Order: sequence, then structure tokens, then C-alpha cells
Amino acid sequence: MTRPDGTSLWGGRFSSEPDPVILAFTGSLPFDSRLARHDLIASLAHVRMLLDTGVLARAHAEPLLDGLGELLGEIETGTLTVEGPDEDVHTWIERTLQERIGSAAGRLHTARSRNDQVSIALRLFTRESIAALCVLLTDLLEAWLAEAERHVETWMPGYTHLQRAQPISLAHHLLAHFWALAADADRLQTAYERAGVSPLGAGALAGSLLPIDPRRSAALLGLDRIYPNSLLAVADRDFVADAAFACAMLMIHLSRWAEEIVLWSALEFGFVRLSDRISQGSSLMPQKKNPEAAELVRGKAGRVIGDLAGLLAMLKGLPFAYNSDLQEDKEALFDALDTAAGSIRVVTSISQGLTYDVARLERSLVAGFVTATDLADLLVQGGTPFREAHRMAGVAVREAESRGCELWELDAGTLAGLAPAIGGETLQAVRPEAAAAARTSEGAPAPERVRDQLADAAALLQHLRDWAEDLRPPPIYQAYRENRLAAAEIK
Amino acid sequence: MTRPDGTSLWGGRFSSEPDPVILAFTGSLPFDSRLARHDLIASLAHVRMLLDTGVLARAHAEPLLDGLGELLGEIETGTLTVEGPDEDVHTWIERTLQERIGSAAGRLHTARSRNDQVSIALRLFTRESIAALCVLLTDLLEAWLAEAERHVETWMPGYTHLQRAQPISLAHHLLAHFWALAADADRLQTAYERAGVSPLGAGALAGSLLPIDPRRSAALLGLDRIYPNSLLAVADRDFVADAAFACAMLMIHLSRWAEEIVLWSALEFGFVRLSDRISQGSSLMPQKKNPEAAELVRGKAGRVIGDLAGLLAMLKGLPFAYNSDLQEDKEALFDALDTAAGSIRVVTSISQGLTYDVARLERSLVAGFVTATDLADLLVQGGTPFREAHRMAGVAVREAESRGCELWELDAGTLAGLAPAIGGETLQAVRPEAAAAARTSEGAPAPERVRDQLADAAALLQHLRDWAEDLRPPPIYQAYRENRLAAAEIK
Amino acid sequence: MTRPDGTSLWGGRFSSEPDPVILAFTGSLPFDSRLARHDLIASLAHVRMLLDTGVLARAHAEPLLDGLGELLGEIETGTLTVEGPDEDVHTWIERTLQERIGSAAGRLHTARSRNDQVSIALRLFTRESIAALCVLLTDLLEAWLAEAERHVETWMPGYTHLQRAQPISLAHHLLAHFWALAADADRLQTAYERAGVSPLGAGALAGSLLPIDPRRSAALLGLDRIYPNSLLAVADRDFVADAAFACAMLMIHLSRWAEEIVLWSALEFGFVRLSDRISQGSSLMPQKKNPEAAELVRGKAGRVIGDLAGLLAMLKGLPFAYNSDLQEDKEALFDALDTAAGSIRVVTSISQGLTYDVARLERSLVAGFVTATDLADLLVQGGTPFREAHRMAGVAVREAESRGCELWELDAGTLAGLAPAIGGETLQAVRPEAAAAARTSEGAPAPERVRDQLADAAALLQHLRDWAEDLRPPPIYQAYRENRLAAAEIK
Amino acid sequence: MTRPDGTSLWGGRFSSEPDPVILAFTGSLPFDSRLARHDLIASLAHVRMLLDTGVLARAHAEPLLDGLGELLGEIETGTLTVEGPDEDVHTWIERTLQERIGSAAGRLHTARSRNDQVSIALRLFTRESIAALCVLLTDLLEAWLAEAERHVETWMPGYTHLQRAQPISLAHHLLAHFWALAADADRLQTAYERAGVSPLGAGALAGSLLPIDPRRSAALLGLDRIYPNSLLAVADRDFVADAAFACAMLMIHLSRWAEEIVLWSALEFGFVRLSDRISQGSSLMPQKKNPEAAELVRGKAGRVIGDLAGLLAMLKGLPFAYNSDLQEDKEALFDALDTAAGSIRVVTSISQGLTYDVARLERSLVAGFVTATDLADLLVQGGTPFREAHRMAGVAVREAESRGCELWELDAGTLAGLAPAIGGETLQAVRPEAAAAARTSEGAPAPERVRDQLADAAALLQHLRDWAEDLRPPPIYQAYRENRLAAAEIK
Repeated sequence: MTRPDGTSLWGGRFSSEPDPVILAFTGSLPFDSRLARHDLIASLAHVRMLLDTGVLARAHAEPLLDGLGELLGEIETGTLTVEGPDEDVHTWIERTLQERIGSAAGRLHTARSRNDQVSIALRLFTRESIAALCVLLTDLLEAWLAEAERHVETWMPGYTHLQRAQPISLAHHLLAHFWALAADADRLQTAYERAGVSPLGAGALAGSLLPIDPRRSAALLGLDRIYPNSLLAVADRDFVADAAFACAMLMIHLSRWAEEIVLWSALEFGFVRLSDRISQGSSLMPQKKNPEAAELVRGKAGRVIGDLAGLLAMLKGLPFAYNSDLQEDKEALFDALDTAAGSIRVVTSISQGLTYDVARLERSLVAGFVTATDLADLLVQGGTPFREAHRMAGVAVREAESRGCELWELDAGTLAGLAPAIGGETLQAVRPEAAAAARTSEGAPAPERVRDQLADAAALLQHLRDWAEDLRPPPIYQAYRENRLAAAEIK
Repeated sequence: MTRPDGTSLWGGRFSSEPDPVILAFTGSLPFDSRLARHDLIASLAHVRMLLDTGVLARAHAEPLLDGLGELLGEIETGTLTVEGPDEDVHTWIERTLQERIGSAAGRLHTARSRNDQVSIALRLFTRESIAALCVLLTDLLEAWLAEAERHVETWMPGYTHLQRAQPISLAHHLLAHFWALAADADRLQTAYERAGVSPLGAGALAGSLLPIDPRRSAALLGLDRIYPNSLLAVADRDFVADAAFACAMLMIHLSRWAEEIVLWSALEFGFVRLSDRISQGSSLMPQKKNPEAAELVRGKAGRVIGDLAGLLAMLKGLPFAYNSDLQEDKEALFDALDTAAGSIRVVTSISQGLTYDVARLERSLVAGFVTATDLADLLVQGGTPFREAHRMAGVAVREAESRGCELWELDAGTLAGLAPAIGGETLQAVRPEAAAAARTSEGAPAPERVRDQLADAAALLQHLRDWAEDLRPPPIYQAYRENRLAAAEIK
Repeated sequence: MTRPDGTSLWGGRFSSEPDPVILAFTGSLPFDSRLARHDLIASLAHVRMLLDTGVLARAHAEPLLDGLGELLGEIETGTLTVEGPDEDVHTWIERTLQERIGSAAGRLHTARSRNDQVSIALRLFTRESIAALCVLLTDLLEAWLAEAERHVETWMPGYTHLQRAQPISLAHHLLAHFWALAADADRLQTAYERAGVSPLGAGALAGSLLPIDPRRSAALLGLDRIYPNSLLAVADRDFVADAAFACAMLMIHLSRWAEEIVLWSALEFGFVRLSDRISQGSSLMPQKKNPEAAELVRGKAGRVIGDLAGLLAMLKGLPFAYNSDLQEDKEALFDALDTAAGSIRVVTSISQGLTYDVARLERSLVAGFVTATDLADLLVQGGTPFREAHRMAGVAVREAESRGCELWELDAGTLAGLAPAIGGETLQAVRPEAAAAARTSEGAPAPERVRDQLADAAALLQHLRDWAEDLRPPPIYQAYRENRLAAAEIK
Repeated sequence: MTRPDGTSLWGGRFSSEPDPVILAFTGSLPFDSRLARHDLIASLAHVRMLLDTGVLARAHAEPLLDGLGELLGEIETGTLTVEGPDEDVHTWIERTLQERIGSAAGRLHTARSRNDQVSIALRLFTRESIAALCVLLTDLLEAWLAEAERHVETWMPGYTHLQRAQPISLAHHLLAHFWALAADADRLQTAYERAGVSPLGAGALAGSLLPIDPRRSAALLGLDRIYPNSLLAVADRDFVADAAFACAMLMIHLSRWAEEIVLWSALEFGFVRLSDRISQGSSLMPQKKNPEAAELVRGKAGRVIGDLAGLLAMLKGLPFAYNSDLQEDKEALFDALDTAAGSIRVVTSISQGLTYDVARLERSLVAGFVTATDLADLLVQGGTPFREAHRMAGVAVREAESRGCELWELDAGTLAGLAPAIGGETLQAVRPEAAAAARTSEGAPAPERVRDQLADAAALLQHLRDWAEDLRPPPIYQAYRENRLAAAEIK
């Protein structure tokens, strides 16, 4: 962090140059450069508040607003790149501003500290990133929903312990993944809300003796809550942990789906076929079509668990208020958010590039005795206590297994000695499709219930889409776009 | 898992005894025994639903309700202990019930599976535990609030980087911890809500072909939501991860407080004195008074981070629906919840057993130049651009440091050459108490602002207390207490 | 921690009773009771050293040796149980000793502190546990080796990306797991060595001014190294982290094996059949045979990752020397070691209870084009550059796939246009068994190479067995068994 | 991964272009580009082995050797940059080679797969990085050792529970950190050894049917061990976990040192003064000198714990052999190694830029009763049983505390009633310097013992330096440097 003139943001008390090894280590510009936009927007709000409260005279505020707006414009169009010897993006911005508007830039840091400045920039970034994740999620959920609609009567075995368990439909299976991710959308929205507290005005830790108005700068940023306590405002990284946790859960859900893609595309299962567009070959083995992207999603779930564990370990035991350990929040958060975004995108691509082998799915219902429970349930309906019915069905399974036939192929005579309550008629009722269709309780796989699920899922998806569309850019950003940064009214 | 008669819940198909090594490994009774109450309550709701829907005739349902109620009563009074050779608490309950009411017990498992049964019991447990954590939290928050009320004008240095930074009040500092934990209460309440979805009726994974009513059993348990999808219902452990994450965050916040207690009780700081009741001695060094409990809280934050990381690693990559890996959810969750509860309790005890050394706190304001920022701010008010003001204040600090005096003790003459804008008058205005009291923006340490904070904190606390008091036991449990399990109406 | 007489190990300076909430939280007796034996052995060594150096007169040392030996005997036979109000096992031992031999027990703590005492007990425990793990490992490795010996010519597909890749033998596959666990044995032995440093004599942190001989107590405990620095001796928990890491790696390796068991016992693979002894049924689905124990091993790998992550998070940032956070080392370590031991045992049981379906394994070689690489390699031998050969083999695969035949069933005529270098003769040479047998480089699946592997594996196993058998109990323990604790010579 | 000609390394079987979303996600070139050198060196060894075994004719091998050598030269001098559309560095190398030498490049991949190729490159990288870490460590250890040598008789309090405990010397304290890091050097060396197993020749998983010699390529790379089993060779990432664990432990040790720097540079402790070169100021508070680099080291320990936890979670439950999840090994490993290297460097810089305030350290011995244990020990020497001596010393502490004096300032008359065994003479012997100097057991703080430690530390450091200096570049690299890649002899 050296300015061209050899000074720094905090050089007044210092009499020698910093050690370059230390500088290289403590500098964050290589990664916090992506906060440039968010810092500029927050700085605009800050200056505008200083103007509105009279802390800065209009003559002093306007050059700052103009200069910051200019930088923001160049950053957004890509004509200005964030790089240099500066210790962080905040220093880079102040230095660049100074190069543009001269020493007037020195008024920018009035009544704030990097402590509240870093926090607000990261909060704005987090909210923006979460909103973008939610939009990606809607695309994925929509793809799954569309696929599910096509497979309400595509029958297949549901699994527990990776053993065929009971007949369900493919739609039902896909919807299970749908709802798992819907919970992530909810978790992300909660994290979005929790990040929406403005720390601007907390300064280094104790607010300011200048007559600032923290609610005004918050409102300019579209936030309706401010910090309750200036000390906590700069010490708090809960919003980072909340976001990282939401990403970790999302990745876990994607990893469960990915595991199934890996399994289902194995020759042994053969439930899905990956198109050439979404599978990889081998540099050595010419016959291979590998589900590499799905494997990588699964692997990256581990990565995000690591991001979260590292973040929490970093936060543990830090005394109040700000400590430099907190600088380690950014790379872990970025990595979690980026990995989540990339993974959703890739899962959407895979989902669109695979074909379900419906015949193979349905054929898988035949072996495995997946209706043994239904047999027991039918006996219960006939009056047998469940535990006894379960035992009898177990005996029938053993018998069918030893004969290499299906349950409904057992002859009643044989059964008479073993499990007299099981008549030939009962056996006929346990063909898989019939059994699945008979499960008509709420949330169960019968087609009419799955259609209810599809409707609920569509409603939830619409709700999520509405939420994302209702998000508005901060008023100060709107004013910037409309070139009215110093205008009388910003609301 | 062997019944006295040598059979098991799933023995029908099996022809040889299980390997005892495997049994010892897969058995969960030693830890899931604490779910006995919750399983019994859920079982009561299940049977009552079966009765209400006509799946079970009254003659079959009543002995089950009576038997389960009897077991619940004996568990609650401690006259019955959960132990035995059974593989889990659910098996233990069914076996014990069978010993009481005979083969009629065999109807209990009608239309359910251990998959939905385990999930509902763990959800009820989680909600109960979270509610209890919140009650413990209110006690702690109340203690901190009361202490803060006594120290609105106890001045002390606020720290960043463990360096004295700016003057604040002890009340302000304590309230920072208050709000950190208030966020945990919110996170816990969210986890409570998320756990409140009934999986009962999902069976093994595909619901039931019997005419069950999952909304009825949910309502009997006081839950207004049921699973949207039977497959996910038994595969989902988000509620466990949510609760563990909330505990981890809580522990992190407690660890930050604990770190300060360790620091502040060190002779070098001397900000707090621990009473004999809450400190430990040394087996070797007779002079020691150690803040062991606070250290242990700090250490246990690591433990709960581990619980969470382990849980997430376990969940990663599991295909749908239930897999036995999920059995590993319980011990990690129990550990996280127990550790959080114990830690809150102990932090409350420590808080009540320590004395702040007010004189020492205030004396700490003298060295450290904690009002250098105020000096800069005053120069800003006098028209100097901030960056220049900051530099001048830095020069003043260097001068004062080299002379071994406070800022306000510098003579104006000396400064004239260095930083002419700093007059003697300005210097007089940067005595710490005055400077702290002048920080009157919202959330800042000025006494009137801290009193606002105290009022907000009291309101939040009352809100939390109201929330906890409004929680009602499940209707089926109420019916059990009133001996009306089989009565016409349960609402 | 209260003695019957109301005092404690460190009560001299304290004027009031400890808070029971604090006591319950800081007390470790419920879990460190399992260190009783190790503490007693270390205490015997300590007293004997005090006797040998003259710090304690024989008249004072002998009652201590006798008393400690008596307690050790009763603990080992189970006639004495470690329980009581004491804060930890060390306090319990001193109190119990005092009840037996009166105030003479007060000399036991001469020249030591709980800091070095806890560390040595935990080190002895860790070494004993690791040695036991290694013995369990030999059993498992032996089982795998024996199985591998039976399957040198049982052919099967090797997998990458869960896609059939190249033909190998089952022996080769089993040996891959063998060598993975052999690395764990090595890691465990390293952890064993690293734990073998005696901290006894470091006291609280600064040694003692009494003329003690730390090398003597170390030698009595069978350790040939002592701490280089008394401060580190009590602050160091590397040996705990080393052991936990070794357990985590072991669990990861077992989880990879377990994943395969889950896959292979799925109907779709059908490579193994689990005997009834080692599989579990379903409480609901009568037809299920679930590989629950294998799933649980997989899940428990997550748990041990959590133990390790929690431990490391706890250790991070602790200043020297001892802090109570370190008390959190024990439960995580115990859990990691116990989980590893239980998992090895259960994997051994599963291994002994499963049957490989040799026909199914071999049948799996037919589909999947697992010899496409061999085709390419054969072209390379015929002079085609590899990259071109790879492309041609790819074309052949595509052709065979579209015709639904095996590579060797393609007719040469068809190929002539596509890949002229592939003659009919070449195609005949890529039948799987032939291809696997032709891979004769070191470490490859050709039978003669696998037999080399088997020999190397047997040698390694013997080496591990020898290592375990060469471990000797500490000399002081030997003296205790021979009733010669106070005899002239212990060597 | 597209070549200019639109094909890829594995395109033969594929009929459509890959999805760019998938490509961006699965591509590793942005991070594995740093393996270019290691891959080239391994490729040289591979080709040379193919030549030596006759698999490649000299006419085919020489252009490959020349081409690879040329690329290596340009990479090393920085005239060639690794970037492009390729999916990974291995593909980039083959494509670039092809651009140089044409289709002859197609012979490079003979008898290998990316599976063994990735593993060997990463192993070479890991070893090189670990060796570099060890060299950095020697610099740091040397700095600490030199500092310690200056402070053998600089007295200070040793701490437990952050409470002053017993008198030690600063040298003793610094050496505690020395030995902690010496253990890391040992752990790193073990990881170096474990990484030194060549997987080259394992191919995709099953070796090769060409007459390769894996021991030859290993020897050319300076490795004396090869994989025992081709399947494990490509599935194994233990060496990554070993290295990451070694880094995590190192970071934990550095974080403990860093925590002390943060504490000791706080005004309250004031044990060290940071030079301007190694401290940071505040953008707001002109008086601040913050130990930011030390804080960041502490925070980064959390990060590396996360790297490790993420890696282990990724590895868990992967079936054999290679899966794409393993691609996630690199970034975590790179991050752990880079963070460790940067942290060691910065800790060295800090260590060289701080000054110990010897007077302040020694003054800290006065308050805190740090010789209470010595008092007890002296009573033991006078014949009092330890437990009684401990109690009496406790009483003396309480008395001195209430009088606000030091132990040795208590008058004997007062004590007579409380603890008659404590005579005035005894009290005089517990002045801190005397007490510290009297602790002459091995590893204790008496100057002569510390000088022994210094000698041992110097020897260990020399040993580490020798180890690092003895490391030789791989023979094939040596041949490359000497322009003898195709010469008759490489040994």
C-alpha cells in the first residue's frame, strides 16, 4: 500500500516503509477487487448522506459524487481495471479518486472507517450474489419441474440403502430433489435478509461525533435496518457464515443428486444416458463416457464444507471489535458462492442433456420384491396385525426368492402352508404399477398426488421468481444510473 | 436386536442370527434412548390418527393408546429405564409394549416405517431442545442487560486488533455481546420452525396404501406442515444441520465473549475479577485463579464446529432415500445442543460471578491515545479535509508519544510548527469521557443512545420470552396429560 | 471437586464453594475415568523416580507405591469403579488413595502438576489404543489377503468414474484396499512413535526445583524420549491431532471400501451377497436385506472428520502454555479411536460374511468395451502412434455400440473403411481375460504380478504383526505385575 | 478442451461438441497450469523409459524428448505461458507439443493415462513445495534461535490460563515455539517421503500390456518406490491429505505464536514493540499500530483447517479407482501450501522486526505470586508433604494479596500463626530470578539447561538444513539441464 507520493492512508505516525513481505501477505487487492462496484455504491450513499446532513458542504460533496460516479461507470463498462500496489480495493478507490479530483478526495473518508466500509461492501456483494444464485436456482428448478411433468406415470423403484424398496414414479423422485432445493432457496432468502443490515456509520467501532445519519445512508442503499450497536457492527460476520452455510447445504443437496447421476449412468443401473455434450471421454480408454461434471459437483460439496469449517474456525474466539483475521472472510465466501453458482449451472446443463431410459426404469420394478410392503399392508386391511403381516410377507419373499419368481407368481397352494392369509387374489394386487398408484395419501407417489405436488412446486417456483424480480437496485444506484446523484431528492 | 423369543422386527426373511459385532456397531439404543418420550408421543399421535381414519378399529387402537400412555408415564416419572438388547429405542418401545399388552402391540407399526418414525421423534426432540436453549438464552441475555444498565457511564477503551482504539462505555460493550446472541435466538427460532414439518405417513419412502391422514397426525403433534414428498421426508436431515449450525454460531459468539473474559481477568488487563465460585485453582500453583470455565467454553466452540463439519461430511453424496449413514445424525446433534445448553448456563454463572474493576477500565482510557480520531474529526468540523486531519492527528500522536504525555497535554506552541490547525482548545476537547459522550449517532456509545439500545434490547428480550411462553405442548400430549387419549375430541 | 472434608486439591486460597453449574461443566470424570489405569501407571513411575532420586524417602515412597498398586489392581479387576464428585480422574485417584493410606497420599503430587500428569496419561492411553488398532488391522488385512488369494484369476471390470474401464482380477481389486490400509498402519505407527515422548517432570510449565530425573520416569514407562522444553511439554497436543488424523484417514479408506460394498450388494451390481448374519432387514419392507453396517462405516468417516476438524479448531490460537481448552482433546480423541476400532472390527465381520458372485463379476466384462484401451495398445505395438490408435479404437467402440455387439465381434470388413489398422486378428486378442493376463508390468493385474503383490502383502502383514508383538508393557508395569515396585532394580 | 482442429484427446467416440458450461466447470487449466513444469519433467521420464525399454524407437522418442525439453526450457524462462482453451495442463502440453513437432506428439501418451500422469505431476509438485517450505522453516527457526540466544537470562512469567504462573526466561519461551515447529519439519519430511512413490505406469488403473518398466521411470524422477497396485496408484490421494495435514499443524503452531504477538503488543502486556515496518495503521484512527500480519496468520490457520476438512470430505466414500472428485485435490493443496509458505515468511519478518521490552517482562514477575509453587517445593524439601505445603503456600498468597505485598515481603511473625513451616528465610528464597535459575532439571528454564536446549536446537536446525541441501533434482531433470536427454546413460 504505497501511494505514488510514498504516503499511505495511515502514514502520519509511521517513520519507515512497510516490509514488502508483510505487504504482500496483508494486501487483499487481488481478491477484494471484485468489491469495487459495491464499495463505490456504498461510498456514493455515504457521501450523499454527508451532504444531506450537512457534514459536507455541497461544494465539497459534489466533486466526490461526480468522481465516484465516474469510477463506477468505468468499472461497469470495463474501461478501468482494479489493479495496483494498493493494499485493498478501498485504498485503490481513494487513490484513484485522488488522481482524478485531487486532494478533495481526502474528504471521502469523513466519518467512516475501513471497518464499516468493508462490511457494507461485503454485505451488498453478498446480497447481490445470493439474489443471482436464486435466479440460477429457478432455472434449475424449472428444468426439473418440466421433466417431472413428463414422468408422472413413469414407474421405477424407490431405493433405501441403495436397495430397491418400493415402487414410485420418476416424477416423484425428481420432485424429491425439487423440494430439497426449494429449502435451499428459503435458506438463501433468509441469508439475504440477514445480510441486509447497514453497518455504515459505525466507523472504526464507536460511531462518529459528526452529525451523521446512518438510517439515511442505509435507505440510500435500499436497506431498512441499521446496526443496533456500533461495536458489533464491525465485529460481526454472521452474514458471511449464514451465506456460506446456505451454500454448503445447497451443495450437499446437489451432491446427492449428482451421486444418483453417477450411479444411474453406470452400465449396471443404466437409468440415464448422458449426451455427448455433457459427458467426458478418457485420454486413454476410447470407450469411456464419464459423468465427470456430476462427480465434480459431488466433490465440490466437500470444498464448500471446507469453506464453512474454515470460516467458523477463523471466527472462533476473536475478541471485539475488528481483528484482521476477519479479512479471511472474503475468499471463503467468494469460493462458496462461486462454487454454488457454477454447480447449479452445471447441474442444469446436465439435467437438460440426459435422457431417462424409461423401459429400463420400469423393468427394474420386476426383480427386488418391491411390493412386499404392499402385501403386508393388504393383509393388514384384511385384519391381520401388522407385525404378523410383515412376517408373513417376509416368508413369501423368501419363498419367491428361492423359486426365482416374483411375488405374484407364487402359487397359492404353496403359500397355504406358510402364510395362509395370503390368497392368490392378494398376490395379484401387488404388481408394482398398481401398488404405486394405490398410494394416494398426501405427498405419496400416486399420480393424482404427484399432480398436486407439481402444482405446489409450480406455485413455489413462481413465488421465488416473483421474489427475485421484486428486488430493486439501491436508490443511490438508481440515482447514479439517472445521473441525479446530487439532485434534491433521492428516495 | 433380539426379542426374548428370538425374533426381531424384521426377522421373517432371515435364517440366521446376526453377528454380535455388527449388532453392537449398528445398535443405537445407548444414545437414542433419550428419544423415548418423543417417540412415544409421536406413536400416540400415529395410533390416534389410525383410529380417527378408521385404519384401526377402536378395539385395536385403545389398548395401544393405553399401553403407550402407560409407558410414557413411567418414562416421565423415571420408573422405567430404557435399556436392553434392542437395536434402537423404537424396537425397545415396541418390545416393551408387547410385554405389556401382548401381540396387540403388533398393530402399532401399521402404516409407518422406522424411517418416518425416527425422523418425527428427532424433530420433536430438536424443537423441544431448541425451545429450552432459547429459555436459557433469555436468562443470559437478562443478566447481561442488567449489568449493562449499571454501566451506561462506565467508560473504557473499545479495542480493535486488541489495541485500544476509541472510548466507549462498558454498557456499550456488553450490549454488543447481547445483540450477537440475539441473532442466535433468531437463528434458533428459524431452526425451530424448519424442524416443524411432520414426516409421519411417509413410511419407508412411498407413503402407504392404507387410508391414512398425515395432516391429522401432524396436527396432533402441534405441527401445521407435512412433508411435500414422501421420498424426501425420510431422506432429509436439513433440520439437523440447521440446528447444528445455529448451535455452532451461538458457540462462536460465546467463545468471543469467553476470550474477553480470559483476557480481562489476566493481571495485565485486570478489567474483571472472578469470584472464587467461578474460578479454578491449580493442583500445583497455590496462587492461581484460573478462568477455566471461560476457556472451556472457547474450546467447546471448536467441538461444535466439528459436530457440524462431521454432519455435513456425512450427508454429502448420499443417494435417495434413507441410508444408514443418517443414523450418525443423532450423536452430533445431541452433542451440539448439549454443549450449547451447558455453555449458556455456564456463561450465565460466570457473568453473575464477576466484578468489573471500573477504576481500572477508566484508567485504561488514559494511555493509548484513544481519542486521536476525535481530534481528526474536530479538525474536520473546523474545515480540514479528513485525510489531512488524519495525518495531523497522527503527527500529534507521535509527538505526544515521544514526550510520554497525553494528547491534551501537548502544548500548543509545540504543535504550531507541526499541525497548526490543532489549537490548544481542540486538544482540551479530546478527553475520553467527553469524546465518548459526544458520539450521539444511532447505535453509538453516547449515554442517551445506549439507553435507546437498552430499551430495544429489553423489548427484544420480552419478545423472546413471549415466544417461548407461547409454545404449547402437542395436543396429543395434552390429551395424554388429561387422560383423554381415546376421547372423541382432540383439538 | 469436593473432598469429603470440604477441601479440594487447590482450595488453600479460596474462600467460597464453587458454583455447581461450573463444576458440572468443567468436570471431566465422566470421560477421563478411562484414563485411570494410565494415570496410575504414570503415578507409579513418578513415585519410583522420586524414590530413586531421593526426593522421597523410602519410608514415604513405599506406602505410595503400595497404595497406587492396590488401586491399579482393583481397577484392572473391576472391583473398584471410578465415580464420585471429583473434578477429574486425577483428583479421584488422589482422594481414593488418601482414603486408603491417609495423609501420606499428600506426597504423591510432589514435583508434578496436573498439566504434565494429564499429558502423560493421555499419551500412554493413545499408544495403547493405537497398538490395539494395529492388531485389529492385522486381522482385517489378513482376511482380505486370504480372500485375494482365492481370486487371482477371478476376472472383473475395474472402474473409473463408476464406468467399467479395464479388466482386472478381484484379487487385484482387494489388494488395492489392502495397500490403502497398509498406509494407515504406517501412519498409526508414526503416531505411536510421536506420542512416545514423556512430559513427566515438566510440572505446570517450568519443571521443578527438586532434584528430579525426567529420563528415569520416562524409562520406567518404556519411553526413550522426554520433552525438550517444559513449557511446550504441557502445551503440546500434536500427538492427539496425529492420532486423530491417522484415524480419519483410516476411516476414509474404510468408507471407500464400504461404498463399494453398498454398490456391489445392490441388485444392479450384484457382485456380492451379504449373509443374513451381516445384513439388516426393514421394520416395514419384508423383502429388504440392507448393508447397514457398511453404510454406517461410511457415515462414521464423516464423524471422524468432524472430530479432527473440531480438535484443530480448538487448538488454533491458544497462547502458551496450558489452557483449559485443551481439556477438549480427550472426547474427540476417544471418539476417533473408538470409531476406528469399531469400524475395523465390523469391516472384518462383513468381509467374512460376504460371498462374491464370481459369475456375475465375470459376466460384467462382456458389456462395456473394457478392452478398448488394449485395442489401442495393440495398434501401438503394430506401429500406430498412440493418439491415432486411440482415435481408431474409439471409432471401433462407436461402431460396436451401434450394432450392439462386442469389439471382437465386429467383422473386419466393416472396420476396413473406418480403421484399417484394426485387423480381425487384433480384435480376437482383446477378449477381457486375455487382455488382463497380458498386463504383466509390476503392480498390474496379470496373475504372476498379483502373486508378487500377495507375497509383498504377506510380508508387510508379518512385519506389522511382529511390530505389535514386540511392544512391551512399561517396565514399571512389569514390576507391578511382579510385585516388585519398590525392589532395588527396575530396568 | 478443443484443439484447433476441433478434436480433443478423447473425441473418437463423441459426435457433438461439449457444452461450454460443462467445459468451464470441469476445466482445470486456470489452476493446474502451475503443474506444467512437473508434468513436463514426468513426461520426459516417461518417454525416456519408453525409449529405454524399446516401446518407442529412438527415431520416435528423440523428437518427443527434444520437444518436451524445449517446452520445459521456455516455461522455466517464462517465454511460454500456459493458457488456452484446453481442459487441463496435460492437454495443453500435448497440444502445444503437437504444434511444435506435429503428429509425432501423438506417441507421447503411449502406455500412460491422465490418471497416472496427474498423480505423478502432483506428487513432484508436492515434494518440491514441501522442500521449499522446509527451507523457509529453517530461516524462521534460525531467527528464533538467534533471538533465544540473546535472552537466556531475560526473566519473565510463564503463563497458564493466561495467568502468570511461574518464572521462566524469554529464551525458554521462544524455544517452546522452536520445538513446536521442529515437529512440523518432521511432519513435513514424513509427508515428503510419503509423496515419493511413483504411480507412472499404472495407466488408467490396470497398468499396460506394453513392456514398460515403472521402476525405470521412477528412478529417472529420483523416486525409489513405485505403486504396489495399479488400481490404488490412481485412486490414492493420501499424499495430498498428509501434506495438507502437515500444513494445518504448522499453521496451528504459527497461530499460537501469532496470538502471543497480538497479546504481547497490546498496551496492557507491552512485552513487544512492533517496528513500523511490520505493523499497520488505521485509516481512521491515527494513533493505531496494529499487529495485522500476526492476526492474519492466526486467521489463516482457520483457512487451512478448512482446506483439510474439505479435502477429507471430498475423499470420503469414493469407490475405486479414479473419480473426477479427485480433481478437487489441487486447489485445496495449493492453498494449504501457499498459505503455509506465506505465513512462515511473514512470521520470520515479524520476528525480525520486533523488540522485546526486557524491563517490562521482568517487571511482570513482581506481581502475580509466580513463585508460590517454589514456596511449596521448598517446604517439601523441608519435609512437609506436598499437599500440606501447597495449602500453606496458598494461605501465604492470600495473606500477601490482602496486604498488597509480595510473598517475600510477608513478615515471619504474621505467618507464624498461619503457616509455621514458612520461615522468613524460606520467603527470601522465592524471589523470581532465583527461583527460575534453581529449576535445573532437563528441559527446565535454568540457564544451563536452556543452553543445552540451544545446543540441541542448533543441531536439529543443522540436520534440517543438511536434509534440504541433500535433496537432488531428478536425474532426468539433471539430464535435461545438461542437454543429455537422449544420451546413452542417465543414472
